Amino acid sequence: MSISLSTLQHYFIAIRNNKLFEFFVIGVILFSAVLVGMRTYDLHTRFQIILHFLDISVTVFFLAEISLRMAAEKRIKDFFRQGWNVFDFVIVMASLIPLEESQTILVARLLRIFRVLRLVSIIPELRILLNALIKAIPRMGYVALLMFIIFYIYAAFGSLLFKGINEVLWGNISIAMLTLFRVVTFEDWTDVMYETNEVYPWSWIYYLSFIFFTAFVFLNMMIGIVLDVMQTEHENYNRDHEEGEAGEIHWLRKHAEEMETRLMRMEKMLEDIHKHS
Amino acid sequence: MSISLSTLQHYFIAIRNNKLFEFFVIGVILFSAVLVGMRTYDLHTRFQIILHFLDISVTVFFLAEISLRMAAEKRIKDFFRQGWNVFDFVIVMASLIPLEESQTILVARLLRIFRVLRLVSIIPELRILLNALIKAIPRMGYVALLMFIIFYIYAAFGSLLFKGINEVLWGNISIAMLTLFRVVTFEDWTDVMYETNEVYPWSWIYYLSFIFFTAFVFLNMMIGIVLDVMQTEHENYNRDHEEGEAGEIHWLRKHAEEMETRLMRMEKMLEDIHKHS
Amino acid sequence: MSISLSTLQHYFIAIRNNKLFEFFVIGVILFSAVLVGMRTYDLHTRFQIILHFLDISVTVFFLAEISLRMAAEKRIKDFFRQGWNVFDFVIVMASLIPLEESQTILVARLLRIFRVLRLVSIIPELRILLNALIKAIPRMGYVALLMFIIFYIYAAFGSLLFKGINEVLWGNISIAMLTLFRVVTFEDWTDVMYETNEVYPWSWIYYLSFIFFTAFVFLNMMIGIVLDVMQTEHENYNRDHEEGEAGEIHWLRKHAEEMETRLMRMEKMLEDIHKHS
Amino acid sequence: MSISLSTLQHYFIAIRNNKLFEFFVIGVILFSAVLVGMRTYDLHTRFQIILHFLDISVTVFFLAEISLRMAAEKRIKDFFRQGWNVFDFVIVMASLIPLEESQTILVARLLRIFRVLRLVSIIPELRILLNALIKAIPRMGYVALLMFIIFYIYAAFGSLLFKGINEVLWGNISIAMLTLFRVVTFEDWTDVMYETNEVYPWSWIYYLSFIFFTAFVFLNMMIGIVLDVMQTEHENYNRDHEEGEAGEIHWLRKHAEEMETRLMRMEKMLEDIHKHS
Repeated sequence: MSISLSTLQHYFIAIRNNKLFEFFVIGVILFSAVLVGMRTYDLHTRFQIILHFLDISVTVFFLAEISLRMAAEKRIKDFFRQGWNVFDFVIVMASLIPLEESQTILVARLLRIFRVLRLVSIIPELRILLNALIKAIPRMGYVALLMFIIFYIYAAFGSLLFKGINEVLWGNISIAMLTLFRVVTFEDWTDVMYETNEVYPWSWIYYLSFIFFTAFVFLNMMIGIVLDVMQTEHENYNRDHEEGEAGEIHWLRKHAEEMETRLMRMEKMLEDIHKHS
Repeated sequence: MSISLSTLQHYFIAIRNNKLFEFFVIGVILFSAVLVGMRTYDLHTRFQIILHFLDISVTVFFLAEISLRMAAEKRIKDFFRQGWNVFDFVIVMASLIPLEESQTILVARLLRIFRVLRLVSIIPELRILLNALIKAIPRMGYVALLMFIIFYIYAAFGSLLFKGINEVLWGNISIAMLTLFRVVTFEDWTDVMYETNEVYPWSWIYYLSFIFFTAFVFLNMMIGIVLDVMQTEHENYNRDHEEGEAGEIHWLRKHAEEMETRLMRMEKMLEDIHKHS
Repeated sequence: MSISLSTLQHYFIAIRNNKLFEFFVIGVILFSAVLVGMRTYDLHTRFQIILHFLDISVTVFFLAEISLRMAAEKRIKDFFRQGWNVFDFVIVMASLIPLEESQTILVARLLRIFRVLRLVSIIPELRILLNALIKAIPRMGYVALLMFIIFYIYAAFGSLLFKGINEVLWGNISIAMLTLFRVVTFEDWTDVMYETNEVYPWSWIYYLSFIFFTAFVFLNMMIGIVLDVMQTEHENYNRDHEEGEAGEIHWLRKHAEEMETRLMRMEKMLEDIHKHS
Repeated sequence: MSISLSTLQHYFIAIRNNKLFEFFVIGVILFSAVLVGMRTYDLHTRFQIILHFLDISVTVFFLAEISLRMAAEKRIKDFFRQGWNVFDFVIVMASLIPLEESQTILVARLLRIFRVLRLVSIIPELRILLNALIKAIPRMGYVALLMFIIFYIYAAFGSLLFKGINEVLWGNISIAMLTLFRVVTFEDWTDVMYETNEVYPWSWIYYLSFIFFTAFVFLNMMIGIVLDVMQTEHENYNRDHEEGEAGEIHWLRKHAEEMETRLMRMEKMLEDIHKHS
């Protein structure tokens, strides 16, 4: 019995690692994406029923596929150790749960949209890309905080001063922050400015200084990311090429010192020989 | 006879490689561009007839020029081996075919616009520039795919949720994607947001998160291209300067090792001599 | 008595350097930020009274905290030597002064908003970030001046030529500069252009050349900052790693020269020995 | 007499190189800029007369200053050899010529605006900045040509296809190019698209492909400039530091080869001595 189980597991691993199976899974994910897209069109009832059954088939297939992946691991624990597996598991489960209830159809449909994200976890190049993107996040954390402080202060000012002019744009600090985000995207920002400029003729300073500050901080954020990515790339290059340029130069320096002391010893001896000969 | 053909071919090659001939071809291409531009103005009938004859002349000249280029090659096959030749051939042929039919005048005119593109294939600097641009495409492939996935998921969400609010903007997934592209370009995006915000007060999260995601991925794409181009440039530099800095350092390291072992041998000998002397 | 004062000071220093105290101060700053935000909402009178008392408590706490920091220094002078301390002191004092007057409530509230800025001075990462941003300013000074000259010249032109067309947009040089800033942000700039294009059909040259010039200068500014930051980063790296690559190479070169002269001397001696043996 | 002239010239050179004189000239330029700005305001007649006399004084001063600079040179030819002197001369002369005619007051005023540009030629840092900007122009030439070709082809297409839909936007190829520039700046571009989309439902491909192409080429242009500027900066650094890293490494390699041959000779001799001893 124990042998039979092990054979089964080997069979599962073989399927999981099979390139054809991977392409088939990608195909099913793409198909489920098309299903999601078709749902947004106004369709004939008969076609909707077909869609519904296709949807259930996809769900069942995903369930089978994820079970197979779990069975292929020695212990279930190993499966959940990899972040992308957890990601897949959550997406498949999310699209599974509300399927039975008939009321919350909208929620079920919305959750099924996330199945498109499985493309990211199954295509290795996209996984690498996303990992690189995630690595850039910490560097941006404090810059984002600084940006938020600027937004908060300007929004508090704007809300206190311009509330009487336009309740819709400056009603409270949250609305004011949304208005400021609109100003940052240059979307009809002059309309916002001209309105307050009539009451406070100096208010253009408020808008211009805000645009300059946020653009300035954003620029720095961009540079920060560029430098970060470049450094990572450089380190990877050094790792791949054993030591890299800096490593080789350091080696040279160290050995040059050794050679120098050796030469000094040799010269001493030569001088001795020279004197005696 | 065979000699006569060969002489003719040498004559063709001489013409093709002639700088003056090249400038004349560039002149004709520019002239055909001007013709294309003039067609868009409302012109007197007599002038239109002149334009028509000039157009035919240009077409005939291009036909003659491409034939000459083909005749200048040893085998026709060699001509089609170079991508830019195929590019030229397709453009000239495309402007030739619908010339006889009188009905599809618009299509004929549209196809003749592409003749302006011959400027790219005939000016070497533009050809180099375009080759460099084409090289940057693969790096962008997967980023574009990631971008498309983000667009697709957000469009599916938007279409399912906001369809009832505005059929024109969120009617189906294709229309929703176009609307989202509009949001990304900040074109009246607040109008789109304020509309849905009235029904779903949290919908600003949908728009802001979308803007952040796409801007973030786009930024990374930009950096990716910058790094790619810089690396290529660097490699070209190394190739042009024989080995480059990294190569010279590697050479130094290798030879320093040899020198060290040689010095060790010499020290050994010196010690021997020193003892005996 | 002198000992007692010194003990007290040690006690103050201990509090100031305590991590828990720092987190508590950050907490109070965040709480004061929330108070600032809540003020912008329409609140019940009873709640407003509570807010008022909380506000006073925060002010008192900040006063106590800054006094403690000053007391922890050996001399008051040392406290004011650090830029960030002065920054904190001004902010706390500014929120303190108009508290007594009941008329200028708006000014008092506006000044209290700046207390959120204390987050920057108390979180070390933000302080580092801001210092880096400040370092990039000088490099931008002259570029900003060049930008201002371009704006000034175009505004003078625009004001002299287009004043008769639209007094609101081109009334005088200051208004014209604001209009040009609007053009640079692409905010309904075509409306501005189409209006003047009717009177002066060539005026699109004015707008397009202005957009090109400012975009061009801005681009250069961006690159300038990127290069500046990269260079600083590089220098810091070299300082941290003792000498860096360039330093090691320089060391190698110098010592290689010494080794060469030593080898020459040694060869000379060897030749002598060789001849005599 | 000859000595007297030479003494006068020495006196002129002393004035020209005097720092105080330079600051005074900068002051006058700034003052003339303020005069230009004040002209755009509606002023009292009496004030306008004062402005007029101040304007004449500035013109006379500039004339005197440029004469002094010319007199300070050994030959007039030397003066015109420096590009910035020619620049100054043209600006001063341009503001001088139409001063006498009373009819073309507007042209005179417009020409006098250019006097603000003298700030660029007199402040060394701005001169350096502008020289750097000018150096970046050639690299952009071919990219701008490529950009123009894309604009031209799309404008020809747009004009031929959409002329019937909106004469104002697509009337001829020039108007169509202006409309496309508007699309590139995202200024109400969806209005342009929705209009043509009604007749040609596929026309969104036209706009999206155009935005992608131009953004792509522009991105490459930006990178091109960045690389160009970085390379120039790097070369300047190498020139300033005698040889730079690459130079030192090359020196090391060359000398390492010499040391190697020398060591080989020495080993040979040592072996000889070793055998005989």
